[in-house]
Parts: sequence; structure tokens; C-alpha cells
Amino acid sequence: MATLGIDLGGTFARAAVVDAAGKMLASAKVALDERSPTGVVETIAQAASAAVKSAGVVVGGCGVGAAAQIHKDSGVLSVAPNLGWRNVPLGQLLTDRLGQKVKVVNDLSAAAWGELHAGAGRGAQDLLVVFVGSGVGSAIIAGGQLLDGAGGVAGELGHIKVVPDGRRCGCGEQGCLEAYAGGHNLIAQARELLAAGSSPALAELVGNDATKLTPVTLEQAAEAGDAAAREVYERAARFLALAVANQVTVLNPARLILGGGVLNHCPGMRRRVLDGVRAWASQTSREGLLIADAELGDDSGLIGAALLAA
Amino acid sequence: MATLGIDLGGTFARAAVVDAAGKMLASAKVALDERSPTGVVETIAQAASAAVKSAGVVVGGCGVGAAAQIHKDSGVLSVAPNLGWRNVPLGQLLTDRLGQKVKVVNDLSAAAWGELHAGAGRGAQDLLVVFVGSGVGSAIIAGGQLLDGAGGVAGELGHIKVVPDGRRCGCGEQGCLEAYAGGHNLIAQARELLAAGSSPALAELVGNDATKLTPVTLEQAAEAGDAAAREVYERAARFLALAVANQVTVLNPARLILGGGVLNHCPGMRRRVLDGVRAWASQTSREGLLIADAELGDDSGLIGAALLAA
Repeated sequence: MATLGIDLGGTFARAAVVDAAGKMLASAKVALDERSPTGVVETIAQAASAAVKSAGVVVGGCGVGAAAQIHKDSGVLSVAPNLGWRNVPLGQLLTDRLGQKVKVVNDLSAAAWGELHAGAGRGAQDLLVVFVGSGVGSAIIAGGQLLDGAGGVAGELGHIKVVPDGRRCGCGEQGCLEAYAGGHNLIAQARELLAAGSSPALAELVGNDATKLTPVTLEQAAEAGDAAAREVYERAARFLALAVANQVTVLNPARLILGGGVLNHCPGMRRRVLDGVRAWASQTSREGLLIADAELGDDSGLIGAALLAA
Repeated sequence: MATLGIDLGGTFARAAVVDAAGKMLASAKVALDERSPTGVVETIAQAASAAVKSAGVVVGGCGVGAAAQIHKDSGVLSVAPNLGWRNVPLGQLLTDRLGQKVKVVNDLSAAAWGELHAGAGRGAQDLLVVFVGSGVGSAIIAGGQLLDGAGGVAGELGHIKVVPDGRRCGCGEQGCLEAYAGGHNLIAQARELLAAGSSPALAELVGNDATKLTPVTLEQAAEAGDAAAREVYERAARFLALAVANQVTVLNPARLILGGGVLNHCPGMRRRVLDGVRAWASQTSREGLLIADAELGDDSGLIGAALLAA
């Protein structure tokens, strides 16, 4: 039977009806105008209703992937930074509103599940999925099962410490990988260079307009040989590549799946991760390892959430 | 029904008959005089026979924990450095010799399984077990199952890279955690200090006799304020603590279980690991985390191997 998948981001809710093979039959996207839990639940219901109507099939069950820390089993969002939520029982609220059994998971877990069953992970049992977009996230599939950890927060690769007492991270702690290599923080570091006047190449690329800075402009400035840009960029790339390589050593996945805006749009960063895994992951963990790009793009979380509910 | 557990080290084979609750009914230990596969199989059979005879019960199944990389499912030891073996089908050889179904796993996996069912992990489903002895090893239990990885070599925490292109490790690669923080390498680094004449405290502690160097003497010299000893020791402790903290962040275990000679006998090293986890593991991964010492000591692998065969 088809199921409903929901992707709850910071600005939109997307809904899709997905068949048992992971094929999207219909989808809908609605902006989150009202960010109260009740408002968001209504927006999700609206998107869900539109998708179900377009698909014209009966759905049995609903899965939600949310950019949040999820309390295992209960479907409570402990912390959802994009929405400014703490301890919102989204699973229960949606169950009541939709009249469906609802399963809520972290967006990366949903994406990994989607890639496992309908994307670059098909046929494998052990995956490490690393997404570098505005943040850095990962999800682990071991023996065909999501590794969610005792509290449901496993996979937080972005929050391993790479420089104890280093840069302040959005999570409130210091020295996290994400504080150096996440897209938001690549831009923040580029902005610091621009403000300090220390990167001529970067200033020229964006015409001294800080709002035009992106991870791509930072990569371009670094690759043009600009010393300051290069230092920030290479440090980020090195931390990211080493972290991914070390997780390959510890987890020995069959496939490493890479995705997210930074890895998709910064070919140099992606290449450094591949080179790092080849150089630094233990030889035995690399035997038979396949490295692949995520195949489902923005739909991986939507499809994965639906399949988790199947 | 009771099962047989085998602990295959580099110098001894131990065998124990273990009941379903993880209680050792009898055990035997035989020195490995002959290190050929046939010789080792005979030694194991001798130890097994003695243990079974003492226990006076019928056993159904045999588990082996070996200090080796094991090919998943087949029971082939791909690399067993202590025995100088490559690609030895120990599982099959023992099955033929003992007339029992035999399961072969890595020694750390066996120890983790023992701690899970009969030691410090009882009642938990998600464990990270870290042993620092002559080497550095770990094993991961997720959702009550051993995480062994696609090739059966997951958990090789000792071989994550902490200094790309750093110290040469016994595994043949460079910059591994074990090359700095494993017991053999702590001694090797202390020996280098002694040879260079750069650590007066260390020289005094062992009367300039390099054969008396241990991880404990290095810790003592460091804690006495000796600058050179302190540098080597604190670097090792910091790498180890950061690596363990980062694995807690990624895996979100319910319990972190610590064991092995270095952590058992060097209280300062153990304290630095505990402090590091508290300081550097992400706050959410630390919520509800219990840190405990391995309870079964040298028997964890023996008991775990037997229980894996049950």
C-alpha cells in the first residue's frame, strides 16, 4: 500500500504519496507561514491532502523527516532549531490531525532510508550517508537497520569536535566540524575574511558584497590561490575529509553516500573528501567500499520518510 | 544448553564452558607452542577438551574470539598479526576438529558481547566498548546487535587517523590513534625519550633500563612534571579522549564501557578519557550516557564468544 512522506524543513512542508517501491506518485509543497506547532500541523495537513488527492490512492501510514532532534519512539521533537521549537509532540499532533499512524525521524535518517531502498544504497546493508549543506549531517545504516542510538541522536557527525575550544557552533558548543565545514559557517568565515579585507580574490568575486558570498565563491577564491581564502577552505576540507575517512574506518560501510548542497556544488570539496577517504580510511575498511552520490536529490527524505512508514 | 568459548591470543588459547546466563562452569588455558594453523587447532582442542571434561556437561556450539581481522560469515582469519597468519579458515578447521558448529569473531566483538549479556552492559541495547591495552580497539553494539560492518572489520577505533602522515603504526599505515595511545606505542615513545636522554624523570624511574618502561612509568613521569614525558603522554591522552568523545557523539550509545590494561592501570589516562567525553561529546549524546568499567576482566572475550555461539 502507498504511504505518505512528509519533509518538514525550516520554510516549507512537502508531502508525497509514495508506493512500496519508493516511486513518488504525487507531491505537494506548502510554505510555512505560521510556525506555531498548530500552524505547522495545519500546513502539513494541507500539503498531505493535496498530495493524496492528486495521487488518487488510499494511503496507509505516514512518515515525517524533520530537521530536528527527535526523541526516539515518542515522535517528540526535542529541538528543532529552524522552527524554534523545543519538546513539541509532532508525532501525536499529526496522528490526531491526519488520522494516520505517524512515524517521525530526523531528516538525515529519512534521507538515508530513501537512498537505501530507492537510491544509491539499493542492494547494500551497511551505509554511511554524509550530507554537507548548510550544516553537516550523517546517518548510519547497519545490517539494513537505521542506527539511531540510545536517545535517537546518532549520526551527528557535524558535532564531533575537531578543534576543542574552537569556533562557536550553532549548536551552542565549540569546535564542531560543522562550525568549520558546514555551508552556513563557510559563508560566515568568508564574511570574516571580507570584513577584515584579507582576501582580495573573494572581494573581487563578489564585488565586496557580503550577501553574494557562498561556499562556491570561497572555493573559487581558494582555487585562484588567494592565501586567506585558501587557509579557511583547506582547513574545512581537511577536517571534513578526515572525519568522513575515520567514520569509514570505524563503521566499515559497504557504501559511502555523499550529498547536500556544498558537496553537490563545490567539486573541489567533494574531491577532497574522496581523496581523504582513499588516503586515510584504514585499508581493510576501504576494501570493497563504493562511494556514490545520493541519487534522489531533494526527494530522498520525502521518499525515505514514506518508506519508513510502510 | 552450555556452549564453549575460546579466546585465541598470541601466546595462549583459553577455553571455557559457559552456561546460557554467561556463568563460566569450567575453563582451561594451554600455551601455543606450535603456531601453525594445525598446531593451534590441536592446542585449542586440548584446552576445549579439558574444559568440557571439568564442567561435566554436554556443550552445543562453540564461539571463538581471536585477535584478528575475521572475514564475516566464513570464519576465515584474514590477518592475525600475533600469529603471523593470513587467510586461515579457522572456523572450518575447528568445526572439523571439534565436531561442533563454530562461530569466529574478533576478540573485541566477543568481549563486547560478553559485557552486553553478562557484564557492564546488561540491560542496555546500545554500547560502545573501548579497550586500550597493547593496542586500541573498540566494538559497537547497536539495537542489541554487533555492528560488524560490510567486511566484518567495524570498530577499528585504533586505526582512525589522528595525525595524517604521522607516526608509523603496526598496521603499516601512518598516524593511527594506536600509534600514539596504544600500550606498545606508549612504551615505544617512552623508549625514544630514554634513548634521547630527554626525560630525566623517566630515566630515574626505570634506572635507565628501557626494559622496565611501561605505560604506568610514562604516566608517573608525566605526572611528576617531566616536560618530555608530559608532552608524549598528554598528546596520547588527548587523542584518545577526543576519539572516544567523538564516537559517543556519532553513535549515541546508552553505555560507554572502558577496559584493557592501559585504562585499568593508568588512572590518569582513564580520567582524561572520562573528562574528554564530558567536555567534548555533544550534549545530546551525553544525556543518559552511563560510563562503566568492563566487569568481566580477562574473561569477557571468553564468555562473549561462548554466548555468541548459544
